[in-house]
Amino acid sequence: MGAQGMRTHRVKFLPSGREAAVNDGATIHDAALALGLPIRADCGGKGVCGTCVVKIESGACAPTPHPSITPAREKNGYRLACRAAVTGDLAVFIPEESTLPAGDIDFETVVLTEDDGKRREALAGLAASPLLVRVPLSLPPPTLEDNLGDMERLARGLKAAGAGGEPRCPLGLLRRLPAILRASGWRVDAALADLPWGPEVVAVSPAGGPPPVGLALDLGTTTVVGELVDLSSGACVRRAAAYNRQISCGTDIIGRIIAAGKPGGADLLRGLALETIGKIVERLLAHARLEAGDVAAAAVAGNTTMLHLLLGIEAERIRLEPYIPAANRFPPMRAAEAGLPIAASAPVIFSPGIGSYVGGDVLAGVLACGMGRSDELTLFIDAGTNGEIVLGNREWMIGCACSTGPAFEGIGIACGMMAAPGAVEEVELASRDAVPRVATVSGAPARGICGSGMIDLMAQLFARGIIDRKGLLVPGAGSPRLAERGGRAAYVVRRKGEDGAAAEIYLTDVDLKKLLLTKAAIQAAIRTLLLETGLGAADIARVVIAGRLGEALDAANAIAIGMLPDLPPGRFSYAGNGSLWGANLLLLSRPAREEILGLADRVTYLDLSTHPSYMEQFVASLFIPHTDA
Amino acid sequence: MGAQGMRTHRVKFLPSGREAAVNDGATIHDAALALGLPIRADCGGKGVCGTCVVKIESGACAPTPHPSITPAREKNGYRLACRAAVTGDLAVFIPEESTLPAGDIDFETVVLTEDDGKRREALAGLAASPLLVRVPLSLPPPTLEDNLGDMERLARGLKAAGAGGEPRCPLGLLRRLPAILRASGWRVDAALADLPWGPEVVAVSPAGGPPPVGLALDLGTTTVVGELVDLSSGACVRRAAAYNRQISCGTDIIGRIIAAGKPGGADLLRGLALETIGKIVERLLAHARLEAGDVAAAAVAGNTTMLHLLLGIEAERIRLEPYIPAANRFPPMRAAEAGLPIAASAPVIFSPGIGSYVGGDVLAGVLACGMGRSDELTLFIDAGTNGEIVLGNREWMIGCACSTGPAFEGIGIACGMMAAPGAVEEVELASRDAVPRVATVSGAPARGICGSGMIDLMAQLFARGIIDRKGLLVPGAGSPRLAERGGRAAYVVRRKGEDGAAAEIYLTDVDLKKLLLTKAAIQAAIRTLLLETGLGAADIARVVIAGRLGEALDAANAIAIGMLPDLPPGRFSYAGNGSLWGANLLLLSRPAREEILGLADRVTYLDLSTHPSYMEQFVASLFIPHTDA
Repeated sequence: MGAQGMRTHRVKFLPSGREAAVNDGATIHDAALALGLPIRADCGGKGVCGTCVVKIESGACAPTPHPSITPAREKNGYRLACRAAVTGDLAVFIPEESTLPAGDIDFETVVLTEDDGKRREALAGLAASPLLVRVPLSLPPPTLEDNLGDMERLARGLKAAGAGGEPRCPLGLLRRLPAILRASGWRVDAALADLPWGPEVVAVSPAGGPPPVGLALDLGTTTVVGELVDLSSGACVRRAAAYNRQISCGTDIIGRIIAAGKPGGADLLRGLALETIGKIVERLLAHARLEAGDVAAAAVAGNTTMLHLLLGIEAERIRLEPYIPAANRFPPMRAAEAGLPIAASAPVIFSPGIGSYVGGDVLAGVLACGMGRSDELTLFIDAGTNGEIVLGNREWMIGCACSTGPAFEGIGIACGMMAAPGAVEEVELASRDAVPRVATVSGAPARGICGSGMIDLMAQLFARGIIDRKGLLVPGAGSPRLAERGGRAAYVVRRKGEDGAAAEIYLTDVDLKKLLLTKAAIQAAIRTLLLETGLGAADIARVVIAGRLGEALDAANAIAIGMLPDLPPGRFSYAGNGSLWGANLLLLSRPAREEILGLADRVTYLDLSTHPSYMEQFVASLFIPHTDA
Repeated sequence: MGAQGMRTHRVKFLPSGREAAVNDGATIHDAALALGLPIRADCGGKGVCGTCVVKIESGACAPTPHPSITPAREKNGYRLACRAAVTGDLAVFIPEESTLPAGDIDFETVVLTEDDGKRREALAGLAASPLLVRVPLSLPPPTLEDNLGDMERLARGLKAAGAGGEPRCPLGLLRRLPAILRASGWRVDAALADLPWGPEVVAVSPAGGPPPVGLALDLGTTTVVGELVDLSSGACVRRAAAYNRQISCGTDIIGRIIAAGKPGGADLLRGLALETIGKIVERLLAHARLEAGDVAAAAVAGNTTMLHLLLGIEAERIRLEPYIPAANRFPPMRAAEAGLPIAASAPVIFSPGIGSYVGGDVLAGVLACGMGRSDELTLFIDAGTNGEIVLGNREWMIGCACSTGPAFEGIGIACGMMAAPGAVEEVELASRDAVPRVATVSGAPARGICGSGMIDLMAQLFARGIIDRKGLLVPGAGSPRLAERGGRAAYVVRRKGEDGAAAEIYLTDVDLKKLLLTKAAIQAAIRTLLLETGLGAADIARVVIAGRLGEALDAANAIAIGMLPDLPPGRFSYAGNGSLWGANLLLLSRPAREEILGLADRVTYLDLSTHPSYMEQFVASLFIPHTDA
């Protein structure tokens, strides 16, 4: 009990043994968040999803009725962490099912694929007007006759080097400038940022330092991907990815916004985003043998909510009619202000969005795929945790968003994982009773399944009659891979050890239902956009799919389940992580930085939540491939 | 004794009774500075000037030989504070003579004179493009159809109001924007800063707030003057002045730079400048019934060293050949960054300088007197602690600086004070034995003498034969006002109570010597400039005198002592505090902000310290009026 009579209690978590002190009446979920424990809560702690089940090992805690807790489990001490009020000291066990997937803790250094390499080459072709350039200068030391001030001498040198304009020099740098210039014998590298309002000197260092690198960051709702990029060559130094630690506060945008609206919530969510980014950057730096101060610029692509939460800007009104963000265009700022763990003075820019639900991640993808510069009618699909779809060409564009959930990124799927080494990314099933053939990312031993693998599997299971039109496993289908897992019907893709698999990999009925909802949301959104514009699928010259599904997306299988329109294979292309490519472009090319601002003005936003036919299309899409089939 | 064996001692100061703990070997001056006690040290603590004499009341302290300490005084415990090492606990008395003048503690709210009023009218005529404008906006609340983000809505409103450009909005404001817009019912005032790189929204507040005020600041070596200015009308709300508390670290620029170069010195000097400004602003706000947050912009004019020290920028190289400052143009910044105690987001701009010894204060004066827009050959004289002189017109300008010392501002003069109410600003002496007639600033009871009064007195004493050509009092002159004060020959201007005088006011031989040095420095600089340009005094169409001498400067008396060239009275004008007027212009007018940058490029700097004839001219000027007379 506290000095002021406020009762506090101790909550000890097992198996970690970590302890939190919380006020009387706080929830077990609050206690876990306070410790940063990776506990699931897909609905963001609203008592809806039932993913945060924990077991009380000692102490008293009132029951929390929920369909996911049977009477027998309730008697054994099972509770929903987000509903269970702490009214005395407790010891609480977090079962594995309620723990966030390992990806959240074990960070992957993602391997660059061959396709990545090609896209990278295209980028290098653009390059040459990066957000930050390093200008080597050899300045004449001052004399009584040539007695310019240090800053004016630097500006003169930059002008002579063709760096243009009168660059600004912030106070922090000005304070160190005299010492740096003299210690380096007047031979320095000036780091010059190309900002919308003109050039700015952000750093001056002794000549001959390593080439400056930048950070391209794709800040997704579920997955965060970072790349270190050589700013002079455009080459990728290293890539790494991690699950967004904010998942502990909800798997979708709405859950996050609600969590951020609670007292202290904004700071908590900002901190979790920065923690995620921090671990990615740490990993990138370790592999590249660089230090934080070597990362001299950053471009961040993210949806509107993610950028609000990252920057500590109130996001509450994004989820309330009329759904208004604080901003769609975020001002460039210093890394220190944004909180990014790179050089404090590094300029950071953000991809602009067009509305609360079609954000900068989508525009970054649109930028990267070049549809705004093309006459062809293009359908751009970003299959992230929010599905965002843009239809149009150089003349016009219309965009919409649909709630797809994080299933394709491996969250909420029993054996799901991100498209990282070891993820099953391709599945082929020769016959109903065949052993599925699989391919994994990087050919590593299978340890989970990612989005493209799930789409393949769903299409193949349907083709072989193992699941029905509603996506449910058919018990009498006669496949030797049918089983029961956690009380649910399941299909086993890989047994542990089979072909060297690191773990058993299966999909349950519940997983399949989630995948069906995801594909239906995308399918319905595409159909609604076509209806709205009076165009037919056949009018689409090019379908560009972006997102974190994995490189191996098979369009034929996606068409088979109805997710994509039935068009000839040649019209489909997988653009990789469009958001990340867009962030790369923003980092490397001034024309790209200018183009994306124009895109933000040109895309018309179609709100599906109030659209008269979207819900109808969605319900009809909850079948494979569709009720119309 | 400290835990690590580092010996510390206690120094108790009398009469205040305040105590400091200092390390063994620190000086008594260090201890006084640590407490912020207003102790004098005109040479900045180099053991030269002898102004920091203190008396040891208890404890042992080794003697500090210096001409100002007679053997008798030494025996009585008198020491130089800046040389006296603390090697044990001490009690130290600070005599009044070693204390900084009262102006340093008692701040004056300076009354605006009639001339001020006229200049102010001229300013108001210019106005209308202030550094910060308040734009009242009535924004349409968002709807599903009109669903722009809050920041984009604000930008659209500003554009519709003709505020031009796409304004930047910093992160701090963006975080509060949604709440402000809604709490105010979408009726707000946007504060828009006009910065060199474009408009910037610095604040948004509910509609109908008070008109925005700005701070014009003249940051002098000796005197700091601030004005609150109504940014919409150009009217002065209030003016206040104070001695620069940095005087404790030296009365001239060189002493300050040396003090700043000691460990912790930069922070100490920055803190003292900010403390001075803080007290001025506090006083201004109290009188105007405003709060710090109401002051929405600032323009600061100061010499190169003062701006370095204010901003915590290393100034050491200003005093070392080849005399190079870190910068002559300081970047605009937020008040929070500059440390100014006004609205944190307020834009702060600085007058640019042209070199280490002709700084932004002079250019501000040149700007204010309009010589850069005139065809007339103008001689501009800023008689501050550094004397700075610019000769030229619209076509060309040449400037130089000379070390005058702070005598005209009242520092180092027994009864000196700044040109504040009660300062004797005019003196007339009908005959050798007459009682001098005086006028004081604001007609308040006399309590000291300011620059213009000293010049009058020196000229009148010379004319009546009471001082000789070397400026020394003539013992046999027969004036009843001759006396001895502090062991020195003195002339008593006012006896205490005479005509209501609040204190006795006199000048000693020592004071007269300092005045002679000051006038000689200015006289020699003017002559050198004329020599350098091959012009004669008669070519000068206009002489503009600026500085803190006081409004009542009598050109005839200044000519009589040789300080000013002998020209018809009609060619002289007193421009008031040019630096302060320039700061006002920068605050109120965009053309002025642009013009001053051009001036900085156009003025040629003439270095007197290396000039072949300056020293010769100086020695010849150490006579009244001159050896040539």
